[in-house]
Amino acid sequence: MADNIMLSEDMVLELFEAKKYARLRDIFVEMNPVDIAAFLNDFQRDKSAILFRLLPKELAAETFVEMDSDVQEHFIKSFSDSELREIMDEMYLDDTVDIIEEMPANVVKRILSSTDPDTRAMINKILKYPDDSAGSIMTIEYVSLKKNMTVADALTRIRRTGVDKETIYTCYVTDYNRKLLGLVTAKDLLLSEEDTEIVDIMETNLISAHTHTDKEEVTQMFSKYDLLALPVVDDEDRLVGIVTVDDALDVMEEEATEDIEKMAAIRHVDKPYLQTGVWQTFKARIPWLLLLMVSATFTGMIITGFEDALSVSIVLSACIPMLMDTGGNCGGQASVTIIRALSLEDIHFKDIFRVIWKELRVGILCGASLALVNMVKMLILNGSDTSFLIIAVVSIALFFAVVIAKFIGCILPMLAQKVGFDPAVMSSPFITTIVDALTLLIYFNLAVLILHI
Amino acid sequence: MADNIMLSEDMVLELFEAKKYARLRDIFVEMNPVDIAAFLNDFQRDKSAILFRLLPKELAAETFVEMDSDVQEHFIKSFSDSELREIMDEMYLDDTVDIIEEMPANVVKRILSSTDPDTRAMINKILKYPDDSAGSIMTIEYVSLKKNMTVADALTRIRRTGVDKETIYTCYVTDYNRKLLGLVTAKDLLLSEEDTEIVDIMETNLISAHTHTDKEEVTQMFSKYDLLALPVVDDEDRLVGIVTVDDALDVMEEEATEDIEKMAAIRHVDKPYLQTGVWQTFKARIPWLLLLMVSATFTGMIITGFEDALSVSIVLSACIPMLMDTGGNCGGQASVTIIRALSLEDIHFKDIFRVIWKELRVGILCGASLALVNMVKMLILNGSDTSFLIIAVVSIALFFAVVIAKFIGCILPMLAQKVGFDPAVMSSPFITTIVDALTLLIYFNLAVLILHI
Repeated sequence: MADNIMLSEDMVLELFEAKKYARLRDIFVEMNPVDIAAFLNDFQRDKSAILFRLLPKELAAETFVEMDSDVQEHFIKSFSDSELREIMDEMYLDDTVDIIEEMPANVVKRILSSTDPDTRAMINKILKYPDDSAGSIMTIEYVSLKKNMTVADALTRIRRTGVDKETIYTCYVTDYNRKLLGLVTAKDLLLSEEDTEIVDIMETNLISAHTHTDKEEVTQMFSKYDLLALPVVDDEDRLVGIVTVDDALDVMEEEATEDIEKMAAIRHVDKPYLQTGVWQTFKARIPWLLLLMVSATFTGMIITGFEDALSVSIVLSACIPMLMDTGGNCGGQASVTIIRALSLEDIHFKDIFRVIWKELRVGILCGASLALVNMVKMLILNGSDTSFLIIAVVSIALFFAVVIAKFIGCILPMLAQKVGFDPAVMSSPFITTIVDALTLLIYFNLAVLILHI
Repeated sequence: MADNIMLSEDMVLELFEAKKYARLRDIFVEMNPVDIAAFLNDFQRDKSAILFRLLPKELAAETFVEMDSDVQEHFIKSFSDSELREIMDEMYLDDTVDIIEEMPANVVKRILSSTDPDTRAMINKILKYPDDSAGSIMTIEYVSLKKNMTVADALTRIRRTGVDKETIYTCYVTDYNRKLLGLVTAKDLLLSEEDTEIVDIMETNLISAHTHTDKEEVTQMFSKYDLLALPVVDDEDRLVGIVTVDDALDVMEEEATEDIEKMAAIRHVDKPYLQTGVWQTFKARIPWLLLLMVSATFTGMIITGFEDALSVSIVLSACIPMLMDTGGNCGGQASVTIIRALSLEDIHFKDIFRVIWKELRVGILCGASLALVNMVKMLILNGSDTSFLIIAVVSIALFFAVVIAKFIGCILPMLAQKVGFDPAVMSSPFITTIVDALTLLIYFNLAVLILHI
């Protein structure tokens, strides 16, 4: 499929031992930096630093950006000052910032001391933006134009400065106070006459983000408006940077992971699975587990309270897991659907009554089908030695448990968002705990009512 | 934040009633097509078709693409043949295909009859690719160059043909059999001398997809290699189309939704929540609910089998929900983490022993903490009237349930992927059912062992 070359470790090791460095270099320059990085990440640490030095300057920088942070740290420590400076010079500023954020203080100090004072000032500024803001993921390397330039002027400017810019495909038009006036795409420039003035072709109906805009919102702008880049402005509407689509894609992936983790009652850890320590994983998982375990005390109390009802038949006890699991699954289905729809902005709080109405009908359909199947199943399996009344209690309880689970599952995430919480927290595990308690209450009260206990 | 204009329905209605169409048109042309579409989707159906006709041709096409499919269908039915042809002429081919896929047969026929024969042939070709393949999301409107062109030739070609191409930023170099030889970016073209030959600046180390490549894999290539476009080739390595980053972003969002749904035991429905009918939602949710309910029969049988043990103390029954929920939550945490890591390619099957080793240690830490807290809780709440042995049974069972849940939760998704299933199916609800049964078995056997029942 992909034509990218995949290296075998043995082959490289062999060439390495035979000191065939020129041959190795020839192989590497044909490869994609992402693949070289993946290879070096897994290669023997001391040898990989030597291999890295074989790469031409630009490829070296592109590869460095893609490596795991522990390997980056190892490399930085092994670099001479001039080697480090060369790599840093080649890197885009937003990548440098990303790397700095992962490094311990002494390494950060070394990185900063090998950048020139201007760059250092800009890095420090970006580092100050909150972690989840547009400012923290933007780059300041964009092409800026003035509105009275001609297309020819603009193209000349791109040719002169473009090589160091992260994208030249969207150029931003600013006034002399850096206030954002409009944008011109490279496509517009290429398809317009050379003497056209920028002001005549620039788009002024701009989508932009503020430095403090939440980065999740930024990715939504990208997918909603099919952007390649998004300008970021400060409080005075001055252009301070841009976010490019590749970074938006990364954020989208990360945000989806975070949502999925929240739905499974896990706190987010910003590292790949195998790079997260046992202790860190434990800390991400234990808080919700503890909370949910302690809140299950209530279900226990309900069961204790209905000791008499349970003593009528073991079948009543035997059906508890089935009732609880089905309620939990139904609630989980509803809550996950609603959480995702909220996050994709398919629904909003104003739709709450439409959502409830729909979930009620789906709940009645699901509840009726499940109750029916359960009744048939119990008649076949337990029919001979269990009274029909008990089977009725279980089936009716199942029906109500399902309907209530769908109702709770749709309403809690919407209310959570309304009061400013992340709806993803109102997902399966949390819903399950609430639905469990309600299911048991319905179940036992029905038992008391129907069986006259 | 975003400078996009948000219309108030009342204002538009007022202008509409006063027949101030020129004013309305002026407002619309300043807006982003995405926002116009959102507005028209919610506006009164009969009036929105009239508003739509106010839009200039190009804006109309861009807006049309963004509208909900039921509104699109309504509009198409109200268009005259020439109106429909105008809109179709302005649209990119991949967007036309997307719309066709949502329309009923009679509307599809009308759309196809208003496109020219060449386009119709190409649409039919794309429609034949499997739903989840690169072929189904690609566009055939790309810029192709020949290797012996100069940069000046290439720029001339872009200026002449570029206006109808979905992107001009990545141009593809093909030979006379359309075999893909390399690519040149617009950036390379702008930054090179005019008389340079394409062959000298083209990149030949290409990342490409096959028409049948899974579209999820396509999005992973985009995020891994930071692409703006990806060439798609056929069995003979001939270039047949390209996928652009905006489509990759949409697929990524859709795939994340699909994964999340699978994790909650829901089958995927390819429509926004409020546009999915009750019956459709029911059908998406009921299969897994039924399967999971029926398989809970085993847990019921386990409880029935240990009737004697349960009769010793109601506390033993009362703790069942807590044990089951905690086991389910722990298993869910592990499985969701592993499923996501597999899908992001952070881990592979070869890592299975590292994963198990890590989950075992995390499981022991979580299990020990939970067991300890549970013991303290039970001593406080039930200490006076419950023997310490019962509290010990519950706490020890909790510990083992947690460790086993983590083990099952990590191993099942990896095995599922190994044998070719989607690991996302091995998520919380499924894991919960298995872990429930195991938890109860451990619990009751411990009770028999320790309490000498």
